Amino acid sequence: MIIQLKNNIEPAQKEAIIKKVNSFKYEANEVKTQKGTYLIGIGSKEFDIRQIGNLAGIADIHIVSDSYKLVSRKWKVKQSVVDLGDGITIGEGSLAIMAGPCSIEGEEQIVETIAHLKANGIKIMRGGVFKPRSSPYAFRGMGIEGLQLWYKHAKEAGMKIVTEVMQVSQIEPMLDYVDVFQVGARNTQNFNLLDALGQVDKAVMIKRGISGTIDELLYSAEYVFSGGNEKLILCERGIRTYETASRNTLDLNAIPILKEKTHLPVVSDPSHGIGIRRHVEPLALASVMAGADGVIYETHSNPYKAFSDGQQTLDFRESEQLIRKLRATYDLLCSF
Amino acid sequence: MIIQLKNNIEPAQKEAIIKKVNSFKYEANEVKTQKGTYLIGIGSKEFDIRQIGNLAGIADIHIVSDSYKLVSRKWKVKQSVVDLGDGITIGEGSLAIMAGPCSIEGEEQIVETIAHLKANGIKIMRGGVFKPRSSPYAFRGMGIEGLQLWYKHAKEAGMKIVTEVMQVSQIEPMLDYVDVFQVGARNTQNFNLLDALGQVDKAVMIKRGISGTIDELLYSAEYVFSGGNEKLILCERGIRTYETASRNTLDLNAIPILKEKTHLPVVSDPSHGIGIRRHVEPLALASVMAGADGVIYETHSNPYKAFSDGQQTLDFRESEQLIRKLRATYDLLCSF
Amino acid sequence: MIIQLKNNIEPAQKEAIIKKVNSFKYEANEVKTQKGTYLIGIGSKEFDIRQIGNLAGIADIHIVSDSYKLVSRKWKVKQSVVDLGDGITIGEGSLAIMAGPCSIEGEEQIVETIAHLKANGIKIMRGGVFKPRSSPYAFRGMGIEGLQLWYKHAKEAGMKIVTEVMQVSQIEPMLDYVDVFQVGARNTQNFNLLDALGQVDKAVMIKRGISGTIDELLYSAEYVFSGGNEKLILCERGIRTYETASRNTLDLNAIPILKEKTHLPVVSDPSHGIGIRRHVEPLALASVMAGADGVIYETHSNPYKAFSDGQQTLDFRESEQLIRKLRATYDLLCSF
Amino acid sequence: MIIQLKNNIEPAQKEAIIKKVNSFKYEANEVKTQKGTYLIGIGSKEFDIRQIGNLAGIADIHIVSDSYKLVSRKWKVKQSVVDLGDGITIGEGSLAIMAGPCSIEGEEQIVETIAHLKANGIKIMRGGVFKPRSSPYAFRGMGIEGLQLWYKHAKEAGMKIVTEVMQVSQIEPMLDYVDVFQVGARNTQNFNLLDALGQVDKAVMIKRGISGTIDELLYSAEYVFSGGNEKLILCERGIRTYETASRNTLDLNAIPILKEKTHLPVVSDPSHGIGIRRHVEPLALASVMAGADGVIYETHSNPYKAFSDGQQTLDFRESEQLIRKLRATYDLLCSF
Repeated sequence: MIIQLKNNIEPAQKEAIIKKVNSFKYEANEVKTQKGTYLIGIGSKEFDIRQIGNLAGIADIHIVSDSYKLVSRKWKVKQSVVDLGDGITIGEGSLAIMAGPCSIEGEEQIVETIAHLKANGIKIMRGGVFKPRSSPYAFRGMGIEGLQLWYKHAKEAGMKIVTEVMQVSQIEPMLDYVDVFQVGARNTQNFNLLDALGQVDKAVMIKRGISGTIDELLYSAEYVFSGGNEKLILCERGIRTYETASRNTLDLNAIPILKEKTHLPVVSDPSHGIGIRRHVEPLALASVMAGADGVIYETHSNPYKAFSDGQQTLDFRESEQLIRKLRATYDLLCSF
Repeated sequence: MIIQLKNNIEPAQKEAIIKKVNSFKYEANEVKTQKGTYLIGIGSKEFDIRQIGNLAGIADIHIVSDSYKLVSRKWKVKQSVVDLGDGITIGEGSLAIMAGPCSIEGEEQIVETIAHLKANGIKIMRGGVFKPRSSPYAFRGMGIEGLQLWYKHAKEAGMKIVTEVMQVSQIEPMLDYVDVFQVGARNTQNFNLLDALGQVDKAVMIKRGISGTIDELLYSAEYVFSGGNEKLILCERGIRTYETASRNTLDLNAIPILKEKTHLPVVSDPSHGIGIRRHVEPLALASVMAGADGVIYETHSNPYKAFSDGQQTLDFRESEQLIRKLRATYDLLCSF
Repeated sequence: MIIQLKNNIEPAQKEAIIKKVNSFKYEANEVKTQKGTYLIGIGSKEFDIRQIGNLAGIADIHIVSDSYKLVSRKWKVKQSVVDLGDGITIGEGSLAIMAGPCSIEGEEQIVETIAHLKANGIKIMRGGVFKPRSSPYAFRGMGIEGLQLWYKHAKEAGMKIVTEVMQVSQIEPMLDYVDVFQVGARNTQNFNLLDALGQVDKAVMIKRGISGTIDELLYSAEYVFSGGNEKLILCERGIRTYETASRNTLDLNAIPILKEKTHLPVVSDPSHGIGIRRHVEPLALASVMAGADGVIYETHSNPYKAFSDGQQTLDFRESEQLIRKLRATYDLLCSF
Repeated sequence: MIIQLKNNIEPAQKEAIIKKVNSFKYEANEVKTQKGTYLIGIGSKEFDIRQIGNLAGIADIHIVSDSYKLVSRKWKVKQSVVDLGDGITIGEGSLAIMAGPCSIEGEEQIVETIAHLKANGIKIMRGGVFKPRSSPYAFRGMGIEGLQLWYKHAKEAGMKIVTEVMQVSQIEPMLDYVDVFQVGARNTQNFNLLDALGQVDKAVMIKRGISGTIDELLYSAEYVFSGGNEKLILCERGIRTYETASRNTLDLNAIPILKEKTHLPVVSDPSHGIGIRRHVEPLALASVMAGADGVIYETHSNPYKAFSDGQQTLDFRESEQLIRKLRATYDLLCSF
């Protein structure tokens, strides 16, 4: 049960509502986000919600039978759109294209990538400054200095930044330089990190876990939303299966299923989803046809020299071609 | 190593080639198909194939390092096209759309399905007369009588038939009534069945195993091809994973990977791949963008009354809409 | 619902029972096995079974809510024991040890394997004469002649034979030489083969599918049982997962789960379950502690020269040691 | 390459070694643990290590071809034993039994659990005070106060504590009250947490990831070891597969494989591994036979009232019986 409270609700009214909710043996969890205040009623008994709905201070009330509540589409039929400012959005009504290198490597790379993206009308750049690596001996990213350098150039170019945050203590120093915090596939169920991102007024993109279920992804989003942040994007990036011919198995089934279960935008990451450069394009286009609100992929001026993930990274010529085809595919889909 | 023999090769020439092949400690397996005769050399030592290539009677010779040989793209860069007659083909250069019910149920259903397909320009109809069922107590199909009834109407309408064969002893009675023998996902590694289908001059469509790898699918095709039948089609139909939100996980990664590894046509089955009616369309369109040479899906005049698989079967209105969108998607892809 | 009929039931009595069953909108499937005659009622309405139970000719009647019926433990609390004759059994009350080579290779190998087994008190020998192979170019077994040769020596030694049958047409020629027909992991859902094995009065051991569920294994057994053969053994042999450090993932969870769901004996195949010779022993012993009624493993006088599966095959010294430890482990378990 | 340095090495000697290592284009990572100092050489060129080995200050030098180094068995044939003090160890030479509730719930529960364990000679108690929960609305544990309360009673009883740490910021406050930090299956690749645990002189038990590979588990251990902490234990707790009849699929193959790859102790968690109370015992005993150095399981005075995981938790009578059987099984294994 989700109770949307009026903005001008008085404390006594709220107390009365909570009391009423409790009287049905429901807990009432208060959630205050950038956009509103909600009471999430958690319980199992059935009752007539009109007994609550007519109390003063309530804007609307919804029954949500899913065990995730705020991210469910059951109470919010209209898809949410995440606004990054400057007219840049992720969500229904447009196709968000996000591109950039696996790792931020240095100024030259930043500058040439921004130039490539700008020339093609792309306004959101991806890149890693903290890299989760299986081996402790591998390159772990340029860190906060790399992010600041990147930010300087991105700001000038009007480019938004999406980058991975790996732990709670990084949030604060990253905050001023990031437009979308990415939660990586190994951290999808790092609940402390999700809790902390609930406190922040920045968009958060959660990748599906290495072998995460669709429901677990929704629960992870519920953590952030119930913490107070509803600027959320979900990302399908391939799951682990027995098949070894591709790095992961991109699960495009997840796109329409997620879009039906949640009002949050859903994007696809074909680079990690297949892990083979020459096959990124067909999977990116397929993602659009499957209904993705956006695509995030890796590109680099010289993939063969990339510090990481070169085998799945497009060069700028391939990237340019992909962008053109992505737009044509999206246009066709809209015309249906 | 694949040695293509000349059509007019003399016995003594062939013997000389085999002798030479054996001299390098390679076995020589002779394969005679509808289209030609091949010697497949199996061995491990490396040597200069020009030592064989200049023998009399050889049309061409290729090194194929894959452990599957005849289905590999390494010796046949041009994609194969399977010709069903009457100008109906499956393979590069067109999008094959195959549709029809899960089970053939009776004459009325046959007639109305054919009418629907014909009205929409579809020329290949799917349907099951022998149904593999987990439980021995479930409906097992109309059998050979159902097939004959179906054939009567299909022939009149110029409609080709694709239907599943479950065991060797069914091949003979089915032969006259079938255009494409389908090998189901539970039979992908039924090697006796594959051997027997190698003896037949009818097209064979092999579905990927329930949890079959891409390589296993290619090996299964190699069984049929090396048995003497090169009219082969591969079909991605979803794999078994831990995710329970969909019936299977349609692995669209497999489409470009297969198309690179083999010259055989590759089609997609979104009905089984996701198993949820309202999501079949996006996955079908995504399959085309991923590069599939065709799509096979389930349709029924009244899915709610279908004997089997109703939950993933489109009604005729949905089917009509899907056909229109499939064609538009394929046209866009061709325009790139 | 399972209705056990009296042996001396009269036709009119049976008819009356079927009529009564049908009156509750239940189908009545008659099953006649080596041990008795059953009517399997398939339907969904609930009713008081005493309304049927008191009809003449009924020995007993049981409600079985599982969708598999005859193999369920719900109607047969006592575990079934499969009797191979000569006092050799598989099932509760003893530990069945079955060993032998992957492939039968020739007379010398047969003779020395029998000698090894006999010296260690083992009375069931495994071996393959028809080999399912991914590649059509690999060794496919010695066939029926190999079986006959093997049988000659086994009979002399009082040794029982368990060997894989791959297709319906092999059953008849194999029948006189086989004690246990093995259905391989690629054929677990070859329903025609299962149907045909239901007609035979020989024990059948069904391996779990490559990525078969526990329920699918039970359904497959139901096929054979409902066909008329209740001499059934189930075999856990590892499932396909994402882990590549072992050939398969031996699922020992399946042992106690199967033993609770079915009255059939359950054995374990650690050779295929892990696929690494030096680790077969710990997994074999673990299988016993998990509750397996038996163990089947591969042994060869010289694993390095075995035609197939050498990497997971024990030599005779290792085999001897394993047998000793298996027995000690089983004794400990019995003492608990 | 692992270079073990002498304890009394002089700075100039170390510098000379590093210089030499670098001269072969190898990076030299210095690792200082509780037990010694190592230089880990990371590079790919092959050379004769005797060129380094005879430098002053080197105790020993080993080539380790695995990509994990310090946890590899290639340089340390003897298994490591983790000493928790007071004569309590985990590792070869004894069977470590760890038991306790899923969640610490209050003083009464703590006291009665300790009494049960003590009466049965168990000296390591498990329990959760920070609980990772899929849903943000579920019970998240008693936190640090619960841990302190538990510690008070455990210390009195001479009981060691193993409990999960979920994030870096919890390490410091937990440090004085914990004997073994447990890294949960959702945090196996939380590299920041692993890094931080490398700085601590307390034992760390790393659970295999939800769908983690064996190699990933070893890499995660390498993070902690290379951070400076070699008191490490690995734990198999079941992996995610397509099978839904059990909570997870306990992968006992992993036990002998891990024991061969690493010198670290390996324990098994059958409670999470199967997730069904009445089947925990057979899987626990099987784990011992598979070679586990210990078993960790859940027990509660009244599983039906446990705050979490009640369905897989043994009551004290079942626990007592299990302990007895575990010891008998281990004794048998030692007698082989």
